[in-house]
Amino acid sequence: MGLFPGKGVVYKPVRDVDLGPQSAEFYLQANVKAPRMAGVLVKIFNWFLELPILGSLLLYVLKGNNLIHKLITLAELEESPLYLPLHHSGDLEEKQVKCLDSALSPPEKVELAIDCLPVYSEEIYDEIKPSFRRWTIMDYCRAYRSGDITPRMVAERFLAAVSESSEPTLNMSFFIDYNAQDILRQANESTLRYQRGEPISALDGVLIATKDEIDCLPYPTTGGTKWLHKQRPCTDDACCVKRLRLCGSILVGKTNMHELGSGTSGINPHYGAARNPYNSTNIAGGSSSGSAAVVSAGLCPVALGVDGGGSVRMPAALCGVIGLKPSFGRVPHAGVLPLNWTVGMVGILAGTIEDALIVYAAISGEIPSHQRSEIMPKMHLPLLSSTKSISDIKLAKYDKWFNDCSDEIKTCCSEALNKLRDHYGWKIIDVTIPEIEVMRLAHYLTIGSECSTSLDAFREKNFAELGWDTRVALNIYGAFSSKEYIKAQKIRNRQFQFHNKIFAQADVIVSPTTGVTAYPIQDDALKTGELDYVNGAALVRYSVAGNFLGLPAVTVPVGYDKMGLPIGLQFIGSPWSEATLTHLAFAMQAISESEYRKPEVFYDLLRKIN
Amino acid sequence: MGLFPGKGVVYKPVRDVDLGPQSAEFYLQANVKAPRMAGVLVKIFNWFLELPILGSLLLYVLKGNNLIHKLITLAELEESPLYLPLHHSGDLEEKQVKCLDSALSPPEKVELAIDCLPVYSEEIYDEIKPSFRRWTIMDYCRAYRSGDITPRMVAERFLAAVSESSEPTLNMSFFIDYNAQDILRQANESTLRYQRGEPISALDGVLIATKDEIDCLPYPTTGGTKWLHKQRPCTDDACCVKRLRLCGSILVGKTNMHELGSGTSGINPHYGAARNPYNSTNIAGGSSSGSAAVVSAGLCPVALGVDGGGSVRMPAALCGVIGLKPSFGRVPHAGVLPLNWTVGMVGILAGTIEDALIVYAAISGEIPSHQRSEIMPKMHLPLLSSTKSISDIKLAKYDKWFNDCSDEIKTCCSEALNKLRDHYGWKIIDVTIPEIEVMRLAHYLTIGSECSTSLDAFREKNFAELGWDTRVALNIYGAFSSKEYIKAQKIRNRQFQFHNKIFAQADVIVSPTTGVTAYPIQDDALKTGELDYVNGAALVRYSVAGNFLGLPAVTVPVGYDKMGLPIGLQFIGSPWSEATLTHLAFAMQAISESEYRKPEVFYDLLRKIN
Repeated sequence: MGLFPGKGVVYKPVRDVDLGPQSAEFYLQANVKAPRMAGVLVKIFNWFLELPILGSLLLYVLKGNNLIHKLITLAELEESPLYLPLHHSGDLEEKQVKCLDSALSPPEKVELAIDCLPVYSEEIYDEIKPSFRRWTIMDYCRAYRSGDITPRMVAERFLAAVSESSEPTLNMSFFIDYNAQDILRQANESTLRYQRGEPISALDGVLIATKDEIDCLPYPTTGGTKWLHKQRPCTDDACCVKRLRLCGSILVGKTNMHELGSGTSGINPHYGAARNPYNSTNIAGGSSSGSAAVVSAGLCPVALGVDGGGSVRMPAALCGVIGLKPSFGRVPHAGVLPLNWTVGMVGILAGTIEDALIVYAAISGEIPSHQRSEIMPKMHLPLLSSTKSISDIKLAKYDKWFNDCSDEIKTCCSEALNKLRDHYGWKIIDVTIPEIEVMRLAHYLTIGSECSTSLDAFREKNFAELGWDTRVALNIYGAFSSKEYIKAQKIRNRQFQFHNKIFAQADVIVSPTTGVTAYPIQDDALKTGELDYVNGAALVRYSVAGNFLGLPAVTVPVGYDKMGLPIGLQFIGSPWSEATLTHLAFAMQAISESEYRKPEVFYDLLRKIN
Repeated sequence: MGLFPGKGVVYKPVRDVDLGPQSAEFYLQANVKAPRMAGVLVKIFNWFLELPILGSLLLYVLKGNNLIHKLITLAELEESPLYLPLHHSGDLEEKQVKCLDSALSPPEKVELAIDCLPVYSEEIYDEIKPSFRRWTIMDYCRAYRSGDITPRMVAERFLAAVSESSEPTLNMSFFIDYNAQDILRQANESTLRYQRGEPISALDGVLIATKDEIDCLPYPTTGGTKWLHKQRPCTDDACCVKRLRLCGSILVGKTNMHELGSGTSGINPHYGAARNPYNSTNIAGGSSSGSAAVVSAGLCPVALGVDGGGSVRMPAALCGVIGLKPSFGRVPHAGVLPLNWTVGMVGILAGTIEDALIVYAAISGEIPSHQRSEIMPKMHLPLLSSTKSISDIKLAKYDKWFNDCSDEIKTCCSEALNKLRDHYGWKIIDVTIPEIEVMRLAHYLTIGSECSTSLDAFREKNFAELGWDTRVALNIYGAFSSKEYIKAQKIRNRQFQFHNKIFAQADVIVSPTTGVTAYPIQDDALKTGELDYVNGAALVRYSVAGNFLGLPAVTVPVGYDKMGLPIGLQFIGSPWSEATLTHLAFAMQAISESEYRKPEVFYDLLRKIN
C-alpha cells in the first residue's frame, strides 16, 4: 500500500500483492493512540463524546489518530463489498471425513461425533502423563453409567462450589444468574434416566453453562446489562440450548460477560469482574468471560459463548481452556442476542478438544427452512474427522505477526509449534498476510456499526444505565458513515481473497491466540469499567480473521507465563477444513497436556472416583 | 406501523401484518417535499449543500422532511439486515420449463431459447393484426439467411439513420459514441459468414446497442460523464458483451444515459437530452435512456441497459418497448461500472418479449469460478418456458398502489389487465403490499450509499466536472450513516418476507410501470440537468421491488395517453418463476399488439422485404 500524507491508502489489486515470505508488504503494528482510562476519567471522556458538536469533532480526531481515515474512510480499492462471510467450497471439500446429516437428531449427532473422535496414538499416549486434566464429558458419562455417582450428586457439588466461589474472599463473579431449583430438577430427571438405564446421549446429565447473551429458560437474558432483559424478555430457549436439552444436558445458568460484548476484559460493573481461576486478581478475558472461567475452574466440562471478535477464543486462552469458533453460520443464531449479524458465531469453551467437538455436533446444523425467520443460505454441516491420522499437513505462519506479542507468548508458542512440527513431520510454510491492522479496523467498524444499529432503539431510554466503558464504546460505534461501512466490506472481500490464496497452499494458519496474557484487575475499573485500547488491541490481534472472514478457529492451551498464567496457540482453518483444524488442535493438545497445570481456583466435581 | 411525533416508526413483526385486501395497513403516498429546480437554482442549491456545516444541516432537514428520519433512521424493527437479495427456491422451482445448462456456449443457449419461445395460439393469432410492429431478431435472421439483405446493408442504413437523427432538426441524442468503421467491419464479417452459409447463431448480424455503463470496445465507458473514462479506461468487453460477440451480434455503440445513472429523465448536460421517439420534445426516461430510444426508433431490435432503480423498465415504458430486468445476479456484472453492488442488474430493452428472451439466454449464467474476482454464490440459470400454455395463473394486485398514477395510466393499465384476465380466464387476487414508500426510501438510501462509495475516489478531483443535478444527487447520497444503511437492509429483509408471502399465493404482481408518461423537456434543464423529485418519485414508484428484492420484472407496452405517449404495464415475478413471468408478458403483448403505434421518429432498416 502507498501512504500519502492526509490522503487515503490506494490499495494494490489483490493479484499484485505478494503473499510469499519475502513480500515487500509492510507489517503495520497497531498504534493505538488512547491512554488507559478508568474511574472518573471515563465519565469525563464520555461527557465530551456526548456533546452535540464537540463530540463529533472528538470522534473525528479519534478516527484520524487511529488511522481509520487513511486506511478505510479515504481508501481507494477496487473490490466489491462482501457483506456476509459465506464460503463456497467448490471442489475443496475434505477427504476422509464424515458429514453430519442435517436430518439427524442432536443425540444421534453426538453419537456420530463420539465415533469420530480422534484417539491418542500409541507413541503419543506413552508420553502423556498429564499432571493435571479436567474431567471430560466421557468421564462424566462413564461415572453416571457406573452408578458410582449421579447427576444429582454432581449438581449438588456444583451448587456448593459456585456458592463458595462467590464468597467475598474469592468473589469470582462466574455467574450472572443460576437457579438451584431448576438445576436440581434437571439433575433429578437425568438421574432417573440413568437409573432406568435410559440415558439420552453421552451428554445426559452433563453440566453446561451458557453465556448470558444466549436465551436459556428460566433466566432473563441480560447481555451483561441491568436493563436489556426488561426490554427484551426471554420467552424461549435459543436453538442451540434446545438441542443441548434434547441431549439431556443440564443447563446450569448464565455466565458473566463483558457488558454487551463491547470489551475484552470481562470487568462488568454490574455483576462484578469475572476473575481468572489461574490467578483471581487477574482478568478472565472477554467477552465470554464467565464461560471460560467456569470451564477452567472445573465447574462444567463445557460452556457456550459467542465469538464476534475473539470473544470465545480470547477468554479461553487466558483461562487455559479450549475455545472453538465454528465457521460462520454453522450454529443457528435463533435466540442469541443480535448484537451483530455478520461476524458473530456461537462458540464452545471446553476442557478438551474432544468435548468441544461433541457439543459442536449437538448444536450445529441449519434450522428447517419453515422455522427460519432469517434468510440464510444452506449451511454445510460440520465435518468430523475420522480416526485416521492426517499426514502431510501444512501450517502457514506469518512471522512478523506471530511475533507481535509478549516475549513469553512468542517463546512459548514458537516452541509448541516446533514440537508439533518435529513430532509429526508437518511442514511450516512462511507466508505474508497483508493488511492485518487494516482488517482489525474494518472489523471494528463493522461490528461497531452493527451493534450500534441493533441497540439503537434503546439509546434514549437505557444508555444511561450502561457501564461507562460500554457507553463510550457505543458512542464510538455509532459514529460511522454508510460509506465507511461499505468500504470496510470491500476490505473484507480483499482479505477473503488473500486468505483463500493462503488456504490454497496451506491447511491452516497458526498464531498465538492473544498478544498478552491475563492482566491484573485494577480497583479503579471495578465500578466504571476501563478503557484500555492498547491491551484490547493486543488481545484481539489474532482473532479478527475468524470473525470478519467467517473462518473456523480454535485455541489450545500450550503453556504458561512466569506468573503461571495460561498461553494459547490458535489454528485458523478454512470452512471446508474444520476436521483438519480440529485434528491439529487435538495433536497440539496431546503434546502439551503433560505440562498442564491445575488452576488456583478449581473444583473437582467427580472427586476421582475412577 | 405506529407513527409518533418526532420519533421513529415501530414496525410490527412481519407475522402480524395482514397482506389481505382488507388489511388495515396504510398506503403512504410519496410526499416529496422538494420543488422542481433547474438552471441557476440547482447551482445555488448545490452551493448550500457543499457548505461545511450548513450543508450538513440542510441535508438533515431534507431527510426529516422526506420522512427518512421517521421511517428509517429512528425506526425500530426486529428483522436482521439482508444485504444481498438472493433467493433460495427450495421446492418452488417451476415446472414445465427448460433450464439453461451453464456449460452451454452462448450460441447454444440462443438456439435453446428459440426452441422454447412461446408461439401465438390459433385463436390469438386470428385477432392480431398489428398496425405496427418492429422488426425482430428472427425477421433479421430470416432476411439475412434469404440473402435478400445483408448485415452490411443494414449497418449502412443504421449509420445513415443515426446520422439523420442527430441532425439539429431532430437532435435525438441517442448515442454517446459510435464508430462507423468498427460497425462496418463487424457487418462485413457477418455478411461473409452468411455468404458462406455459416452464421454463428440467430443473433449473427443483429445490431445491438449498449448503455454507456457497460464496457464495449473500442469505446471508452463514460457513464454519461465527461471524465470517468479517463480515470477508468475501458480495456476489455464486459462479460455480457463478450457473449453477444460470440453469437455474432454487431455491437453498434454506446447509448446515451442519465449521468452516472443518478436520475430518471435522461437529460444529460454533456451529451444532450435523449429524446422520446414518440414525441421528440419529451424525455425518453432513464437512466438507460438511449437504449430504450434506439429500440423504439427501430435502430436495433435489442439494446442492453442496467437497472438499479427501474433504469431499464422506466425508459422502456416511456418509449413503448419491452424492458426486462432479470433476477439479481443472473447476468455477470464483470465490466459493468460498479455504481452499486446489491440492487443493479444488466437488463434488456427489446421490441418484443421474444427478442428479450433470446438475448437474455445469450448473456446470462455465471462466470466459471476461476475467472471470478467477485464472490458470488452459484446462480440459477434462467428458465425458459416451453411452448405449453400456462393455465391457472394468479396475478396479485394492490389497488391503492396500482391506482397511484395519472388517470390515463390507471385506466389504460386496468383495461389491459382486465382484457388479459378475460381472455385467458386468469385470476386477479387483491392483496396489500405494506410499506411501499418505506421501501422506496430504503432503496434510495442503499443505492445512494453504494454509488457514493463507488465514486468516492473521484470526489476531490472530478466532481466539479459533473452536471449540477448529478452533483446534488451525489452530495445527498454521501450523507447517510452506517446505522441508516443497516436499517435499510433490515427493511429489505421485511419486504423480502412480505413479497415471499405474496408469491406463495400468486404467480406475479401486476402494476403500471410508471406513475407518469414521458413529460416535456424544459429548456432550463438542458445545461444544468433538473431536480424534479416529484416526477422522479412517480417514475420510480413501481420499480423498487425489482431492484431492492432482486425480483425479475418486465414491462410491456399496453397503450398510449392522449398525447400519444406510451404506457407500460409491469409484471413482477419471483426469481423461481421467470418463465411464468415472461409467458405472461408474451400473453399481454399478444393482446395489445393490434393497438401498437409507430413512433414519430422511426427507421425501417429492413424495408419490408419479406
